[in-house]
Amino acid sequence: MSVLKGMRVVEGSAFVAVPLAGMSLAQMGAEVIRFDRLGGGLDAGRWPLAPNGESLFWAGMNKGKKSIAVDMKSPEGRELITRIITAPGEDAGLFLTNLRVRGWMDYETLSQYRRDLVMVTLTGDRHGRPQVDYTVNPALGIPHMTGPVDSDEPVANALPAWDLIAGNMCVSALLAAERHRLRGKGGQEVEIALKDVAAATLGHLGMIGDVTLNSGDRGKSGNALYGAYGQDFVCADGRGVMVIGLTDRQWRGICKATGTVEAMASLEGRLGVSLADEGNRWRFRNEITAILKPWFAQRRVPEFEAAFNDAGLTWSEFRTVREAVEQDSDLSTENPMFTEVQQPGIGTFRVPAHPAVFSALQRSPARPAPTLGQHTEEILADVAGCTGTEIAKLFDAGVVQSPTFAKPRNAA
Amino acid sequence: MSVLKGMRVVEGSAFVAVPLAGMSLAQMGAEVIRFDRLGGGLDAGRWPLAPNGESLFWAGMNKGKKSIAVDMKSPEGRELITRIITAPGEDAGLFLTNLRVRGWMDYETLSQYRRDLVMVTLTGDRHGRPQVDYTVNPALGIPHMTGPVDSDEPVANALPAWDLIAGNMCVSALLAAERHRLRGKGGQEVEIALKDVAAATLGHLGMIGDVTLNSGDRGKSGNALYGAYGQDFVCADGRGVMVIGLTDRQWRGICKATGTVEAMASLEGRLGVSLADEGNRWRFRNEITAILKPWFAQRRVPEFEAAFNDAGLTWSEFRTVREAVEQDSDLSTENPMFTEVQQPGIGTFRVPAHPAVFSALQRSPARPAPTLGQHTEEILADVAGCTGTEIAKLFDAGVVQSPTFAKPRNAA
Repeated sequence: MSVLKGMRVVEGSAFVAVPLAGMSLAQMGAEVIRFDRLGGGLDAGRWPLAPNGESLFWAGMNKGKKSIAVDMKSPEGRELITRIITAPGEDAGLFLTNLRVRGWMDYETLSQYRRDLVMVTLTGDRHGRPQVDYTVNPALGIPHMTGPVDSDEPVANALPAWDLIAGNMCVSALLAAERHRLRGKGGQEVEIALKDVAAATLGHLGMIGDVTLNSGDRGKSGNALYGAYGQDFVCADGRGVMVIGLTDRQWRGICKATGTVEAMASLEGRLGVSLADEGNRWRFRNEITAILKPWFAQRRVPEFEAAFNDAGLTWSEFRTVREAVEQDSDLSTENPMFTEVQQPGIGTFRVPAHPAVFSALQRSPARPAPTLGQHTEEILADVAGCTGTEIAKLFDAGVVQSPTFAKPRNAA
Repeated sequence: MSVLKGMRVVEGSAFVAVPLAGMSLAQMGAEVIRFDRLGGGLDAGRWPLAPNGESLFWAGMNKGKKSIAVDMKSPEGRELITRIITAPGEDAGLFLTNLRVRGWMDYETLSQYRRDLVMVTLTGDRHGRPQVDYTVNPALGIPHMTGPVDSDEPVANALPAWDLIAGNMCVSALLAAERHRLRGKGGQEVEIALKDVAAATLGHLGMIGDVTLNSGDRGKSGNALYGAYGQDFVCADGRGVMVIGLTDRQWRGICKATGTVEAMASLEGRLGVSLADEGNRWRFRNEITAILKPWFAQRRVPEFEAAFNDAGLTWSEFRTVREAVEQDSDLSTENPMFTEVQQPGIGTFRVPAHPAVFSALQRSPARPAPTLGQHTEEILADVAGCTGTEIAKLFDAGVVQSPTFAKPRNAA
C-alpha cells in the first residue's frame, strides 16, 4: 500500500524532468503509464549505457511505470493516446508532458474529451522555446560562480540540477492541481518553464537582490561554503575532506576537534573581529584555512574520523561515484531505500525507491523499469477499452508495439 | 485565488530545503506560518546580505509567509508552538520541519494533540546525523565529475542543488500525505533524508548501474553535455556560448547553421561511424569540437544570434548573474513571474512568484517576506486562540516577540 495508490497518471515525455516526475509518482504508488513512439522516444538510448548498449538512464528514469509504444503519426495511434489520457476515473485524467505537440495533444483539444483533465506541461522557456539544463545554467550565471578561485573559465554543473528541481516541481504542481479538482473546482493546464524554475531559484536564494543592491558579482570561491565557513582539505593520505562551520555549533566543533581554539582566538585578536559571526568566517576564510590546512595535511583520515564523528562534526570525504557505491553503506542495501533489482535486458544493480518514508504505510521497494511497450496490450484493454480483436488489428497494422512484436530499439 | 487557498502549513526550519518547501506552498496559496526562536533562527543572517546587513537569503526564502517569534526554551513558548502546529481545521495540521527537536516537538508527542497530523521532517542522513548540501555532494561523487577535463581537483556545486531538490520533494510529500488524509486514512510522519535524496538521484540518473556494470568512473568532461553533443565555445568578441546537439534535430541544426555539414560527413568517413548516433557524438566530441571551434572563434555573437534563433537551435550565452539580471528579459518584469517588490527594511528588487502557471487561476504575484515576528499577535489570536490579555502577558514575559517589541535581530 503506497500513499498515491489508486491514482493514474499518463506521461508523454523524454529526458530528465518529466520522466523523473512520473517516476516519483510511480514510486509513491500511482499507476503511471508512459507512452512512447514506436522504437522509443528521444531518450531511449540516453547515456549512461549498459555494456550491451541498453540505456541505464532510461531504466533509471522509468522505474515502476507501465509502457505503451504507439505510432503517433497515425490517426489511430493518436486516437488511442487521446483515449488513454482522457480515460474515465475519479483518480485519473492526470497528464504529464514535455513533448511540445500542438493540435491533437494540447490541452485545448484533450480537455474536449475530459473536461476535468489536469495537464502539467514542462516547457523550455516561457516563450515555448526548447531549453535544456545545459543552456539555462550558463544563461543565468551559475557556471561563473563555480570552480577554482583563480580561474575565469565558467564551469557547468555535472548534475542536471535544474531538470531535477523542475521534475520535482511537476510532481507538486500535479498534486496541487488534483487537490483543487478533488474540491470540485475542475481541471486545468499547469505550465512550468525550465528557465523560469532556474530564474525563480536565483531570486529565492537572494542572488537577484544581491546584484541589484550590491556592487559586483559573487564570483568563484572554489569549494568554500558560501557566506559562512566550510572548506575542503587534503589529508596526509591524499584523501580530500569537506569540513563545515556553517552554524556556530559546527564552527566551535571544528576548532575544538582540531585543537585550534587558541589559534582562532589570536586570529580574532589580530583581525579585530569575532569569528562567531558567520559573515566574518566567510570574509576571513583564507586566514582560517591557513590555520587548519596543516592540521589536515599532517593526518590521515582514519586518524581523526572517529573523533570527528564522536564530536558530531558535519564533514564528509570526497569520493568518486564508484567509491561511494563501494564504500558507503547509505548506498548499499543496508539502506532500506535500496534493493538489488534485476533490470530485464540489462543486469542486476542497486536501485533506489522513493526517498520519502511514510510512517503509516509500508515502504515499497523499487521496481524495475518496463521494456518499451511491455504493457501495450494491457493498457489497450484496460485503459483504452479495446477488445481483443481491436488489439490484434492494431498490432497487425503496426499502430502499436510490444516486446514480442517490436523491432529492436537500437535498430538504427 | 490560488491553487492551495485554504490550506494552512506550519513550518519550523532553517536554511534552504524546508524554508523553500514552505515558501513554495505559500506561493501556491497556502497560509504558511513560520515560527522562529527569539532573535531569529540559524538562517536569520544567512548570506547574501543587503548593504544594511539584513539577509537577502532570508527574504528570498520566506516570501509570503507569516512569522511568529517564540522563546522555545520556555514551557509557555513550547505550548504555544504545539497549539499552533496542532490547531484544528480540515486543511490544517500540516507541519514541515528540519529542526531536530526530540521530545516536545517530535511526531509522537505532537500527534497526541492532533491525531491526524501530517508532519514532514527533513533530516541530514538516514541515521539522523546532520548533513548539508556541501557534505552530501562530495560524499556521492559529483565534484569528481565536475570541472575542467585536465584537472584532478574536485569541484563542488555553487548551487545548493540537493537542498533545492529535497525542498521540492518535501512539498510533494506533504501534498501526497495530505491527499491520503483527505481520503480518511489519517495523518502520518514523512521522513526524508537529504543524503537519501542525493543517493536516489544517482540511481535515477543511471550512475549506480554505470559503476556497477561498467568499469571506471565517469570522470570530468568540462562543460560538454554528457552522452551526446553539447559544447561551450568562445566567440570573436570574447563571449562564451553553449551549443546543444542532444537530439538528432538539434545536431543537424548546428551543422547546417555553421556550414559544417560536409566537414562532419568527411569526419564520419574518416572515423567510420555515424554521428547520427548520440553516443558517437559523445565519443568523438573532441573531433567535432575541433571542426566547430574556428567557426565560433571567427564570429561575434551578434553575427549569428538571429540565425541560430531563426533556425531553432538550442543554445545560450554564458553570463554572470548580474549580466543575466541586466540583460535577460526572462529575469525582468516583462516576465509575469517577476514583480518589483519592496522588501521592508531591505529595498526594492525583482522578486519571483511560483514558476507554475495554473490556467484556471489568476497568477498571484510575489509577496515580500515578513519581518521576524511580524504576525506574532495575529497568530496568537487567530491560531493559538489566545485572548488579548493572554497575548499582552506573553509579550510582557518575553515569551514572544514582534518587530515593535523585538530586540534587533543582529544585536550580537
